[in-house]
Amino acid sequence: MTIAPEAGTAEVSLPTQSTYQTRVADYWNAEENPVNLELGKLDDLYHHHYGIGAADRSVLDEPDAELRRERITTELHRLEHAQAEFLAERLGPLSPADRVFDAGCGRGGGSVVANLRYGCHADGVTISEKQAEFANAQARKRGIDDRVRYHHRNMLDTGLESGAYAASWNNESTMYVELDLLFAEHARLLRRGGRYVTITGCYNDTYGQASREVSLINAHYICDIHPRSEYFRAMARNRLVPVHVEDLTEATIPYWELRREADHLVTGIEDTFLNAYRNGSFQYLLIAADRV
Amino acid sequence: MTIAPEAGTAEVSLPTQSTYQTRVADYWNAEENPVNLELGKLDDLYHHHYGIGAADRSVLDEPDAELRRERITTELHRLEHAQAEFLAERLGPLSPADRVFDAGCGRGGGSVVANLRYGCHADGVTISEKQAEFANAQARKRGIDDRVRYHHRNMLDTGLESGAYAASWNNESTMYVELDLLFAEHARLLRRGGRYVTITGCYNDTYGQASREVSLINAHYICDIHPRSEYFRAMARNRLVPVHVEDLTEATIPYWELRREADHLVTGIEDTFLNAYRNGSFQYLLIAADRV
Amino acid sequence: MTIAPEAGTAEVSLPTQSTYQTRVADYWNAEENPVNLELGKLDDLYHHHYGIGAADRSVLDEPDAELRRERITTELHRLEHAQAEFLAERLGPLSPADRVFDAGCGRGGGSVVANLRYGCHADGVTISEKQAEFANAQARKRGIDDRVRYHHRNMLDTGLESGAYAASWNNESTMYVELDLLFAEHARLLRRGGRYVTITGCYNDTYGQASREVSLINAHYICDIHPRSEYFRAMARNRLVPVHVEDLTEATIPYWELRREADHLVTGIEDTFLNAYRNGSFQYLLIAADRV
Amino acid sequence: MTIAPEAGTAEVSLPTQSTYQTRVADYWNAEENPVNLELGKLDDLYHHHYGIGAADRSVLDEPDAELRRERITTELHRLEHAQAEFLAERLGPLSPADRVFDAGCGRGGGSVVANLRYGCHADGVTISEKQAEFANAQARKRGIDDRVRYHHRNMLDTGLESGAYAASWNNESTMYVELDLLFAEHARLLRRGGRYVTITGCYNDTYGQASREVSLINAHYICDIHPRSEYFRAMARNRLVPVHVEDLTEATIPYWELRREADHLVTGIEDTFLNAYRNGSFQYLLIAADRV
Amino acid sequence: MTIAPEAGTAEVSLPTQSTYQTRVADYWNAEENPVNLELGKLDDLYHHHYGIGAADRSVLDEPDAELRRERITTELHRLEHAQAEFLAERLGPLSPADRVFDAGCGRGGGSVVANLRYGCHADGVTISEKQAEFANAQARKRGIDDRVRYHHRNMLDTGLESGAYAASWNNESTMYVELDLLFAEHARLLRRGGRYVTITGCYNDTYGQASREVSLINAHYICDIHPRSEYFRAMARNRLVPVHVEDLTEATIPYWELRREADHLVTGIEDTFLNAYRNGSFQYLLIAADRV
Amino acid sequence: MTIAPEAGTAEVSLPTQSTYQTRVADYWNAEENPVNLELGKLDDLYHHHYGIGAADRSVLDEPDAELRRERITTELHRLEHAQAEFLAERLGPLSPADRVFDAGCGRGGGSVVANLRYGCHADGVTISEKQAEFANAQARKRGIDDRVRYHHRNMLDTGLESGAYAASWNNESTMYVELDLLFAEHARLLRRGGRYVTITGCYNDTYGQASREVSLINAHYICDIHPRSEYFRAMARNRLVPVHVEDLTEATIPYWELRREADHLVTGIEDTFLNAYRNGSFQYLLIAADRV
Repeated sequence: MTIAPEAGTAEVSLPTQSTYQTRVADYWNAEENPVNLELGKLDDLYHHHYGIGAADRSVLDEPDAELRRERITTELHRLEHAQAEFLAERLGPLSPADRVFDAGCGRGGGSVVANLRYGCHADGVTISEKQAEFANAQARKRGIDDRVRYHHRNMLDTGLESGAYAASWNNESTMYVELDLLFAEHARLLRRGGRYVTITGCYNDTYGQASREVSLINAHYICDIHPRSEYFRAMARNRLVPVHVEDLTEATIPYWELRREADHLVTGIEDTFLNAYRNGSFQYLLIAADRV
Repeated sequence: MTIAPEAGTAEVSLPTQSTYQTRVADYWNAEENPVNLELGKLDDLYHHHYGIGAADRSVLDEPDAELRRERITTELHRLEHAQAEFLAERLGPLSPADRVFDAGCGRGGGSVVANLRYGCHADGVTISEKQAEFANAQARKRGIDDRVRYHHRNMLDTGLESGAYAASWNNESTMYVELDLLFAEHARLLRRGGRYVTITGCYNDTYGQASREVSLINAHYICDIHPRSEYFRAMARNRLVPVHVEDLTEATIPYWELRREADHLVTGIEDTFLNAYRNGSFQYLLIAADRV
Repeated sequence: MTIAPEAGTAEVSLPTQSTYQTRVADYWNAEENPVNLELGKLDDLYHHHYGIGAADRSVLDEPDAELRRERITTELHRLEHAQAEFLAERLGPLSPADRVFDAGCGRGGGSVVANLRYGCHADGVTISEKQAEFANAQARKRGIDDRVRYHHRNMLDTGLESGAYAASWNNESTMYVELDLLFAEHARLLRRGGRYVTITGCYNDTYGQASREVSLINAHYICDIHPRSEYFRAMARNRLVPVHVEDLTEATIPYWELRREADHLVTGIEDTFLNAYRNGSFQYLLIAADRV
Repeated sequence: MTIAPEAGTAEVSLPTQSTYQTRVADYWNAEENPVNLELGKLDDLYHHHYGIGAADRSVLDEPDAELRRERITTELHRLEHAQAEFLAERLGPLSPADRVFDAGCGRGGGSVVANLRYGCHADGVTISEKQAEFANAQARKRGIDDRVRYHHRNMLDTGLESGAYAASWNNESTMYVELDLLFAEHARLLRRGGRYVTITGCYNDTYGQASREVSLINAHYICDIHPRSEYFRAMARNRLVPVHVEDLTEATIPYWELRREADHLVTGIEDTFLNAYRNGSFQYLLIAADRV
Repeated sequence: MTIAPEAGTAEVSLPTQSTYQTRVADYWNAEENPVNLELGKLDDLYHHHYGIGAADRSVLDEPDAELRRERITTELHRLEHAQAEFLAERLGPLSPADRVFDAGCGRGGGSVVANLRYGCHADGVTISEKQAEFANAQARKRGIDDRVRYHHRNMLDTGLESGAYAASWNNESTMYVELDLLFAEHARLLRRGGRYVTITGCYNDTYGQASREVSLINAHYICDIHPRSEYFRAMARNRLVPVHVEDLTEATIPYWELRREADHLVTGIEDTFLNAYRNGSFQYLLIAADRV
Repeated sequence: MTIAPEAGTAEVSLPTQSTYQTRVADYWNAEENPVNLELGKLDDLYHHHYGIGAADRSVLDEPDAELRRERITTELHRLEHAQAEFLAERLGPLSPADRVFDAGCGRGGGSVVANLRYGCHADGVTISEKQAEFANAQARKRGIDDRVRYHHRNMLDTGLESGAYAASWNNESTMYVELDLLFAEHARLLRRGGRYVTITGCYNDTYGQASREVSLINAHYICDIHPRSEYFRAMARNRLVPVHVEDLTEATIPYWELRREADHLVTGIEDTFLNAYRNGSFQYLLIAADRV
């Protein structure tokens, strides 16, 4: 599990630096949820995030059970892909010469989306060795492994080159780390004027502290959802200046309402998400910021 | 020019606290630009800000000179009003029992828009005694002076009641003040969970320091345009947490392209704005934030 | 449910200031756990916290079922009382002329303990109206209601007198609030040189982010356990200087090991606490600090 | 235009890092103001700053036009040189073994002054390639190019050696950059106990925000004059401790009063400077600080 | 020893708030050093600070012993008075309608100097009841007790009116208090644009930590001399912006060299001061700053 | 006196970086107090700190003068050693593979204690070349010089390897340095989750500023004792989170009471320490913190 430093990169620390991180890595090394694998199989774009946009609920009316499952799977994947494209759109404009950094890349879908859209180089980082291997295998299969590479590393301490990236993002992976450390690493990697984007679930300070539902989500995923305020405080301390912020809560609810009815895909956390969004304690938020 | 403290308000300092503020007050006491007065006369909504949205440039084709001027005036006013509504929409939901605070209210249009939309109470504050009188006269004329009141005060030190406001805003008036002092006052006035909105011109840190065009705008209005980063830093220090940020630069360009051809309304700064927006050094930005 | 301001106190805001706080208040207004009520009945000292010290596990060997329950109840109460005394001891020395502030007083046991030990005046504050009433009834029953008073107020904004308190504490109530706001209020209330003490469960930064067990505890109590680091950062910003810090994790484990076997008292969270303490992700900590 | 890293220096980034900086570099690459070139020719000391001290206004009475121009030129150069010496005096004591850093060196006069006074090594840095070439040519001409070298680099990221400098300065070049980044670089370069000196135009916070005159100066030079307060805040954050602060506003006015009458040298900004100084909105300030 | 609050002032805390302050008050209540009393008697200007400027050392050559002592006393007083005038000069311009605040006023000389120079109102504050009484008696004797008043209060918590002062100062009294608390109080009392001046002994960060000599001075006076850096950090946090900083170390040495030979006046600390100044560990510094 | 950089270490600066540090180094290079040397000789554990625990005062009753001195020496050494063990106990658990850092190692006793207890590698750093040589000689004598090494370096800038240390400490050596610089270096050297421990004399903020006694101690040792608050502020800024804080003042008094009667060992500062501890102005404090 050792890392062979690439040319031009600094000394790299171990991918996991605490018991907590080891436990998170174990979780993702073992994770084989259908909602991730079945959807990904459809077009070999493996996303590890939720979807946005209006759902075609007519898929639920499909009388044939197997076909019904298939249509639901396809529709959920469509919504997840829409989210990935929505994020990727905010990264640009980018050219094929640019490099992008995918922090918490999971099974690699986001970097592929960015590469397909812009032709750019991508470096994905995940704490799960299995995810990194899976993602690299996908890249080889697509023949883009010379441009899109996944690393079994810690996103807080990547060992990647300073100032070398035109854009970077976290797609639902910020809740596993301390934001000040995370944004310091993004700020280090991005060139001046580079773009950072995150889509994340955050708890809503106007509601108060974390609600019971937010804590249940934390328990489910072994994560630690931050308050919205913490994102802006930590960005302010790390030279990341927001340029677009959008509350996607309404946009993600159709995804969850559909998913909760997909018996073959549910993980059991669906109603908790819906309750959390509806009682105002939880938000699905996009932040795009510039590295200044 | 003394102030009779209202019941329930604390000691109020002088509206102007520095030579700079006196000079700004003098400017606005003397200001009678047609672009403000002619547009306002159309429906007695006097805005002191720019417009957004697609412009109907066919008004320029009107062969009759006087009618042409009139149609341009109407179109520009429509765009300015659209901006005011766009801002006001972000303040809510609000009920008639709620109070709102209009910081740098100018001739009062924004508070009227908020009152018409929500039925709420409004307190506008301006450093220009003449603007306050003008605005109060308009409120009386509309018969809403029991709910909408304008004060000749300093928006950094209003003497208004702490925690009493459900929403507040600055519509293109933040560039006259130090943001930390401004946001501290908004944070004091807003109740927990209250909403703050600003639409403002800011200079773009990704471009670098203030461009020549930004400085020319500053010289024109005796203002001091802040970098985008400063808004988020100062909000982070004052418990204002962004929930929506939108770059309106593209949306405001049609307004300026039309206005620059309105010979009867131009102030001479139009091309500078267009250049500033187009070279990337200047942005027209909306920030909506929650008081936590 | 309005509050009649006492002489000498400033304007008091509503006890609950957010949906979260209302939900917490509802929880405690409805709470009637035997582990709180049955133990309190023994000597009319109603504690809302856990115990410390070696447990007499021989109570589990009692063959008579009813007597067994009674002996377990008594032993758990002994351990909880030991914790209350351990905290109270750190408040002193205090004289009968001193005033102390009990933040998050629950059903009032802590203030009584302080009064019995030092003869001092005590003001307890709780967000639960029912708890405040219950506690005041107990004080009247003991005949100390002239010296020990409970208020249905928000501990972040008590309206109590600045600089009037010689000591103050939170006994397992800090996890419901933002620490900066809490410590600012303590710093306001304490005289220079006054003592602040908290016993709290915190998550352990050396383990990493909040563990699954910590999140389950949060979900159980609708609370938001802070990392250990946050206590010291927030104290440093609010002129509270630690003078004694002690990890009570080992000392509290016997309490939980006994309680998990008390079928008539368990709430279901017992094993989660034990797991959290044992895997290193959670700590039971005392901090005594001076107001400088 | 690439840079060959010298032995012992770290990786060097591009001299210009933003559109703004490119525009500033273009300005100075193209700049050929007589007030800089004509004065410099007199003794091959090319200054890019203003003068201080009482002016000999009798030069204006010279009847012969050409001689008059020559005498004015000489007098203005004398005042500018007095300013350079005034600054250089604050750098010391220094020995020939010491190295000094000239941030924003222009055509190189300041480094030559320091070398003549102390015999020390000097590294000047300018964002204008043309200025660097010009200055190096001058050094060769004087035969001091082994000790005084000019680099086409960014003063925020010089790539020069950490802790290697006994003194450093900005002579009217701080208004082009963000002070925190600038002072961080000076703090990195200076040895402990090293001296930093700046002479700068700053806007006066006691007047208020930037006045119209200050904005006109900004527009003229494409610069971004900071408030006085920002210097002290940024120094406090970067371990630079003031030891001498002097308001040179009165001392520089004679220079401007003479220059405004020098038809062959004026750039058109002269009256704006005089108005800005006289209305209290602008100050000419020296700050000497120690690196601790 | 209670304080009758004056109209318009807020609640006033006890003059001494810690054992340390009580000990300092005791010191000054008991202090009757000839160097303070004998000098003051000359013209009823009682200074509690050191002198600046060239000393007339010919007074040491006076053959008559009594006359010699008298001439030395007079010369030292002249130097101390020169220091007081030097400070007072930096407070202005002020008008008779202005109010000034003298923090740590001692036996009151500084406030009299300010009143004589500007005709202004003065409020002096000292922690020593005896000094306040002495100073008020002097004011009555001069017939200026309607304009110059001394208060037995704590300069960190004066209870005086916010924003009411045009200028304020500490003449060698900052070393008894925490600078952040002190400057917060000055910032509260001064109107926007008001002037703060201090002359103080500070230790020199370029030398390192406090030298043995500095510690001996601390032990002598029961004070706690701050590093130079702390002044600028604390001012930066409290909206006090330096406008003039001057190292008076050289200027004060003649005073100490004369005083050490005045057998009738020495306190025994004279050589320690001279050593501290000469080894570079200690500085005599004036800072004039504006309240922004 | 140059330093040959070891493999894997960064560039190392000079051990002394200021006049102050040179003076401290001179002090310790010259220091040969019996209380350090005589005690160390007993078992070749040379401590440079005080003792804790109950003293066996019967040693004072020994009638034979020489034996009495010997018994006192032995008893004081026992108390000092108890302190060293008390500190070392807080470093663990550690394994022989771990490295520890001893900041301000003096004649090296602490590192030996750690090595004996845990078998770990130790790097001690002292500004005194003589101490480093002495300590290394001791290590060779014990045959542990392959594991325990002492370096003549500055503890603020050690050049040792980042993240390589499992534990580190300062035993009464923090009062010579600026805490922010010190803790930044510890934070750099410690691995995540590493332990830092200090035992130190600090002045007590609840008493007020530094007392006369504290200043006399500073003068005696040429040190600069920090307030207790500064430790927690600086730790909060440097990711060091306290986990155990204990006031050892009571525990160290018996040591001083015995030492003051040891005529052959006293340095003259004994009564000052006792007075400082007893009047509440000074504390002997242990802080154990985790690097997060």
